[in-house]
Amino acid sequence: MNNQLGLLPTDLCLAIVEACDEIIRGEWHEAFVVDVIQGGAGTSTNMNANEVIANRALEILGHKKGQYKHLHPNTHVNMSQSTNDVCPTALRVTLIIMCRDLIATMVSLQRSLENKAREFQDIIKVGRTQLQDAVPMTLGQEFRAYAIMIAEDICRLDEAKDLVREINLGGTAIGTGLNAPIGYAKLITARLSKLTGIRLKTSANLVEATQDAGAYVQLSGVLKRVAVKLSKICNDLRLLSSGPRCGLGEINLPNMAPGSSIMPGKVNPIIPEVVNQVAFQVIGNDLTITMAAEAGQLELNAMQPIIAYDLFESLSLLQRGIHTLCHKCVRGITANPKRCRELMEKSIGLATALNPVLGYEKSTKIALEALHTGKSIYSLVLEKNLLDKARLDELLSPENMIVQ
Amino acid sequence: MNNQLGLLPTDLCLAIVEACDEIIRGEWHEAFVVDVIQGGAGTSTNMNANEVIANRALEILGHKKGQYKHLHPNTHVNMSQSTNDVCPTALRVTLIIMCRDLIATMVSLQRSLENKAREFQDIIKVGRTQLQDAVPMTLGQEFRAYAIMIAEDICRLDEAKDLVREINLGGTAIGTGLNAPIGYAKLITARLSKLTGIRLKTSANLVEATQDAGAYVQLSGVLKRVAVKLSKICNDLRLLSSGPRCGLGEINLPNMAPGSSIMPGKVNPIIPEVVNQVAFQVIGNDLTITMAAEAGQLELNAMQPIIAYDLFESLSLLQRGIHTLCHKCVRGITANPKRCRELMEKSIGLATALNPVLGYEKSTKIALEALHTGKSIYSLVLEKNLLDKARLDELLSPENMIVQ
Amino acid sequence: MNNQLGLLPTDLCLAIVEACDEIIRGEWHEAFVVDVIQGGAGTSTNMNANEVIANRALEILGHKKGQYKHLHPNTHVNMSQSTNDVCPTALRVTLIIMCRDLIATMVSLQRSLENKAREFQDIIKVGRTQLQDAVPMTLGQEFRAYAIMIAEDICRLDEAKDLVREINLGGTAIGTGLNAPIGYAKLITARLSKLTGIRLKTSANLVEATQDAGAYVQLSGVLKRVAVKLSKICNDLRLLSSGPRCGLGEINLPNMAPGSSIMPGKVNPIIPEVVNQVAFQVIGNDLTITMAAEAGQLELNAMQPIIAYDLFESLSLLQRGIHTLCHKCVRGITANPKRCRELMEKSIGLATALNPVLGYEKSTKIALEALHTGKSIYSLVLEKNLLDKARLDELLSPENMIVQ
Amino acid sequence: MNNQLGLLPTDLCLAIVEACDEIIRGEWHEAFVVDVIQGGAGTSTNMNANEVIANRALEILGHKKGQYKHLHPNTHVNMSQSTNDVCPTALRVTLIIMCRDLIATMVSLQRSLENKAREFQDIIKVGRTQLQDAVPMTLGQEFRAYAIMIAEDICRLDEAKDLVREINLGGTAIGTGLNAPIGYAKLITARLSKLTGIRLKTSANLVEATQDAGAYVQLSGVLKRVAVKLSKICNDLRLLSSGPRCGLGEINLPNMAPGSSIMPGKVNPIIPEVVNQVAFQVIGNDLTITMAAEAGQLELNAMQPIIAYDLFESLSLLQRGIHTLCHKCVRGITANPKRCRELMEKSIGLATALNPVLGYEKSTKIALEALHTGKSIYSLVLEKNLLDKARLDELLSPENMIVQ
Repeated sequence: MNNQLGLLPTDLCLAIVEACDEIIRGEWHEAFVVDVIQGGAGTSTNMNANEVIANRALEILGHKKGQYKHLHPNTHVNMSQSTNDVCPTALRVTLIIMCRDLIATMVSLQRSLENKAREFQDIIKVGRTQLQDAVPMTLGQEFRAYAIMIAEDICRLDEAKDLVREINLGGTAIGTGLNAPIGYAKLITARLSKLTGIRLKTSANLVEATQDAGAYVQLSGVLKRVAVKLSKICNDLRLLSSGPRCGLGEINLPNMAPGSSIMPGKVNPIIPEVVNQVAFQVIGNDLTITMAAEAGQLELNAMQPIIAYDLFESLSLLQRGIHTLCHKCVRGITANPKRCRELMEKSIGLATALNPVLGYEKSTKIALEALHTGKSIYSLVLEKNLLDKARLDELLSPENMIVQ
Repeated sequence: MNNQLGLLPTDLCLAIVEACDEIIRGEWHEAFVVDVIQGGAGTSTNMNANEVIANRALEILGHKKGQYKHLHPNTHVNMSQSTNDVCPTALRVTLIIMCRDLIATMVSLQRSLENKAREFQDIIKVGRTQLQDAVPMTLGQEFRAYAIMIAEDICRLDEAKDLVREINLGGTAIGTGLNAPIGYAKLITARLSKLTGIRLKTSANLVEATQDAGAYVQLSGVLKRVAVKLSKICNDLRLLSSGPRCGLGEINLPNMAPGSSIMPGKVNPIIPEVVNQVAFQVIGNDLTITMAAEAGQLELNAMQPIIAYDLFESLSLLQRGIHTLCHKCVRGITANPKRCRELMEKSIGLATALNPVLGYEKSTKIALEALHTGKSIYSLVLEKNLLDKARLDELLSPENMIVQ
Repeated sequence: MNNQLGLLPTDLCLAIVEACDEIIRGEWHEAFVVDVIQGGAGTSTNMNANEVIANRALEILGHKKGQYKHLHPNTHVNMSQSTNDVCPTALRVTLIIMCRDLIATMVSLQRSLENKAREFQDIIKVGRTQLQDAVPMTLGQEFRAYAIMIAEDICRLDEAKDLVREINLGGTAIGTGLNAPIGYAKLITARLSKLTGIRLKTSANLVEATQDAGAYVQLSGVLKRVAVKLSKICNDLRLLSSGPRCGLGEINLPNMAPGSSIMPGKVNPIIPEVVNQVAFQVIGNDLTITMAAEAGQLELNAMQPIIAYDLFESLSLLQRGIHTLCHKCVRGITANPKRCRELMEKSIGLATALNPVLGYEKSTKIALEALHTGKSIYSLVLEKNLLDKARLDELLSPENMIVQ
Repeated sequence: MNNQLGLLPTDLCLAIVEACDEIIRGEWHEAFVVDVIQGGAGTSTNMNANEVIANRALEILGHKKGQYKHLHPNTHVNMSQSTNDVCPTALRVTLIIMCRDLIATMVSLQRSLENKAREFQDIIKVGRTQLQDAVPMTLGQEFRAYAIMIAEDICRLDEAKDLVREINLGGTAIGTGLNAPIGYAKLITARLSKLTGIRLKTSANLVEATQDAGAYVQLSGVLKRVAVKLSKICNDLRLLSSGPRCGLGEINLPNMAPGSSIMPGKVNPIIPEVVNQVAFQVIGNDLTITMAAEAGQLELNAMQPIIAYDLFESLSLLQRGIHTLCHKCVRGITANPKRCRELMEKSIGLATALNPVLGYEKSTKIALEALHTGKSIYSLVLEKNLLDKARLDELLSPENMIVQ
């Protein structure tokens, strides 16, 4: 680009390109020595790269390493650029690639949950609110709700990803574009879009773009949302599979490993548990990112390295956690239809269906009597001659209670 | 609605409507005694309302309070409804109204910042990265960046608000719609939209909608984003106005109150400080909301009261904080153009403009010599005969350095 | 004190004291108009107080309000003081009083839990790890664990409270004591200790004390710890009381209110739920306090008002939440010993006790066979002639499994 | 221990000990394949260890790997133990060692700050509250305040470390000690104390100890406190060294690296910046740990792996960050005494010293006149004949204003 604009001699340009190609092939990986968590908003990493490129290009040109008068890391390799536009751009390209991977994995999970919803669509069970027995539903409805949660999160993540497409390349030090040729920003963005296959665009205002961390906060906020939903789903899976004898026991998670070093035969919900922990880590990272974003001062946010580090960790942990949840847990879940039906039938939540016919007061009395005597709602209504059997059968048929 | 569907006798319906109208006029305000922070996902508040309505309607019908056999809080007032669909719906209508207010206030702030950007567009100053002197910019660019940040946040908040339009009315206890007539959900949503003037829609899946807190997490996440940006802007305003003699002193905030009980003449940046504190509160509330959302179990999130409480507080604090910031601070900000120019002219950041002509190494040497001798970049270049005066004047003209 | 040191004429001193006494009696409450969340580290509140005192004292002396030449809010009322030492001192005295109240309430809760532990000491039940059936324990052990958690938290809170005793009165603006007479700090601290009955002490270094928020962060961190434990206990109470028919159903929480507007007979765990929400609020407040503490700059933390506001809220919410939990829930908890025993007897966790005799491999085989056939561990061991009945009875007696 | 108690044959015991010694020497490092973030509260890691030990011990005994009938990972290696007591104990021993390292590093930092306090004790400068010029102090007082902050944090960390000494070894699965011989807990704790040189003690109640995460929450809360203070100090260092020409410029941080890829001669405060980022990470980790602790259910906290992971990261990051801050930054800080004095002399904060003599109203008038005319406080008082020169010299001597 600098060569095209007449700023960089062709021989230097070719040497730089060749050096970069070698680096991309991984040939000089060990020359990148800087920690990700660093001061200086990425200057160390950027200069590390500029110096590796310059020295390798010098060798390609037949010079010795360090003979910077021929080709200089700042003057030539970093030409028309600054850490403050190069690093955020590199970060954003990487984030988009990672978001795509995460979305693909979430789509798999959503489909697996939807498959389970179809598989379990005729299994009637008791719904629970506040952990107390409520009214009937199907196990399929339960899993469909999870599938929809993930589907909605995919939409939100996709929107957040789109905000990351805006880059500030060409803004140089503080967004005013000092030392970058006129028009450089637009040209380099187009070139980079072509190269990466990602539709990037130049921010409308480069001064704002250089100091702003809003897109990172938004993305991390959405990752936190994904984490919250995942954790909720995993909590539910652990509740529904609690037991095997002394819990709810409505579903079985696939057995991944002996659950205990001391208790024989114990099987633990280790996959949901690890996803819970991933979720807590993502929520903690969101706080770190929030504080780092708030700490930006004047023309630059110097805390970008930790923002990058934590976004990478959150995206990677979620991607791997969801993959494991999908393949090692959800797909292998089986139902205990008999247990589901038994619990539902003895639930006093069935009394709710009597409300429109008997009124709330009378229904409550029957519910409480059922609770205290251990009798069923059904037998009590018959016993008291409140409704005839046909009407009662119709009302208390759980299938009729599941409207949606 | 229940009356239209033939479920509720007209006389009861009319009495209920009249009772509700009285409540809306504030006549029975003191009868609402339940704390916002409560267990039971809002059942206490819902039943409080149902009972006040029922008792007042009974009086209107000529009965005594408590004669529920004529008109019952659960059977009649709560007909076709459940706390679990009524409370979230009421919450969402309120949130949309509050979001609109907040957005209107943010628009005012954005305009005030943009006005300042125009007012200050010719004031040249030094830009700073990592609190260290960088390259020239205008004070107008600084304020325009803030205006754009707020503009972007308005877009994000508007998107988050739209997600709140989905309601689950008609889902009753767990979203299966038990005890609500077929078609009730669609009808009641249309009616409520007309009544409130808010375009509401019924969620595609009411089981999912009844247990999901995703829209609240998203909205709170965006409020957190707004808080982060506001806090950053306020931090900058406090930095830029630090002094009056021993700080940066580039701008003056309007004097709101004597700044000290002991130090005469001291003026403190109390408006930005209060907005910083509002921001911290909003960020803390986001954590509370996150944890409450994660704690939902199975078919319901019982922690909705605290979610409502904290969203209301965040929206209200932001609205008032931004209003104060706009009217009591930003609009009255004045610049110190002389101070801005003085600092810029002695800055060694000017050496950056020499890079393309002299190269990075030589420019660095001049910068360091300037730093150690106290001389200016300008005089050193002339002294060393590195460039002629005309070229140097052109290069070091700060106006030429502010490209964007 | 200023009068004693010869700085303040006796007549002014007496008028100021009389004005303060009136204020303490609540006579001028409406004259305190400043919001708690404010900029300026409390200057507005301090000056509000100084001005109310000065004006009332002027009236007492026979002057008109505002005739400050006779008695000035800054010169006389604020004599030897600064907002920066007065406000933190007032905050700390209040915090200690609130901590004492909270500790007293926690002691009640701890005793109620301990009483339940004794009441339930012979009720044998299955212990659960990871929501999966584990080995036997007593319900008393379960409640004793909760009592001990609270007891430990009381110790931690008491330690954190002690750190709040250090005050910086006498340090004036930045801790250097400018305008306070020599020795003032020690004298005023002793006087205030006597007046409040709280053993206060002057910080060893007043410059550090004036800018430091460490004691607030520590106190809030301990309140967060209390919140975490409370939330865990409430989560457990909700799990153990889940049902009544389709959950664990080992204990019953006292019925506080009808649990549903639609579901007859439903009883919800609303007290633990409200305490969960209180806990989330306290954890969110801890984040706000953390960020406010981090935002202190140079000689002062200007964000103290929000720190005070959130500490007050956390202390007050915890005190009221724990009081409610203790009186409206824990004291009325009853056990379902039959249900506890039934679940325990069919648990396959009993196989653990076979380990030392049969080895882990054989015990696992029996456990899995029990799980798949529905048979009990006991009958399988007999069936296979692995142990004689007497030995088996001894091994599998749950009473023998509860060592501690 | 098991051998001593007659439970484990001597030949098996010796083989196990030899296998463990090899592992400690690092010989089988690659056999430990389990991720730290895992479900199951550590069972996978514990069984990984048990199996490596068993297989290696089998080889030592002349058997083949996997011939568990001779020596079984659960029956023999895990004898009298459970993941639920072994893993927390291992975690706690590690935490104590890491806390000791961190405290040693903090002591170095505290001493370096104290050395700077002594070095700078005669450099008079303006103190600043709310970033506004306040009253005089010394640069030494500024650094002494930092030294004291760190000293106090060392005390708090030491207290938190002591809470970690309590272990639950001997409690086995849920703290009831099933399958551990009577007295095992006390004996193994004593043995482990001797082996590690750490004064460990058995928890008073092992059921409580097995499910409780209080000590981790407390430790993390104190690490968060350390992070808050460190971040505050680093923010101040960056403010005080801002410039070099257009900031406060009172101190110089040692130059660690060229600060910019584009701006020649720029030096950035990269060490404080990296410590700020470490602090944000530690604060984020505290949230993760808080949520993981809250998620414990009934007899166990299954989320311990993420608690361990984040505590290790926080301790390690703080240790390395503080070491770098101490050696690469604080020790090399130099002062600009001339700049400090210049700023102080033109500060209008000096007017504070006139209060006791001229009253607040008159002092304020002089302060404001100084501000608007650009004159000094000193010259204005003389000009107006308010005080004679000798009295004024005494009053306005900054040395006299620095009482403490």
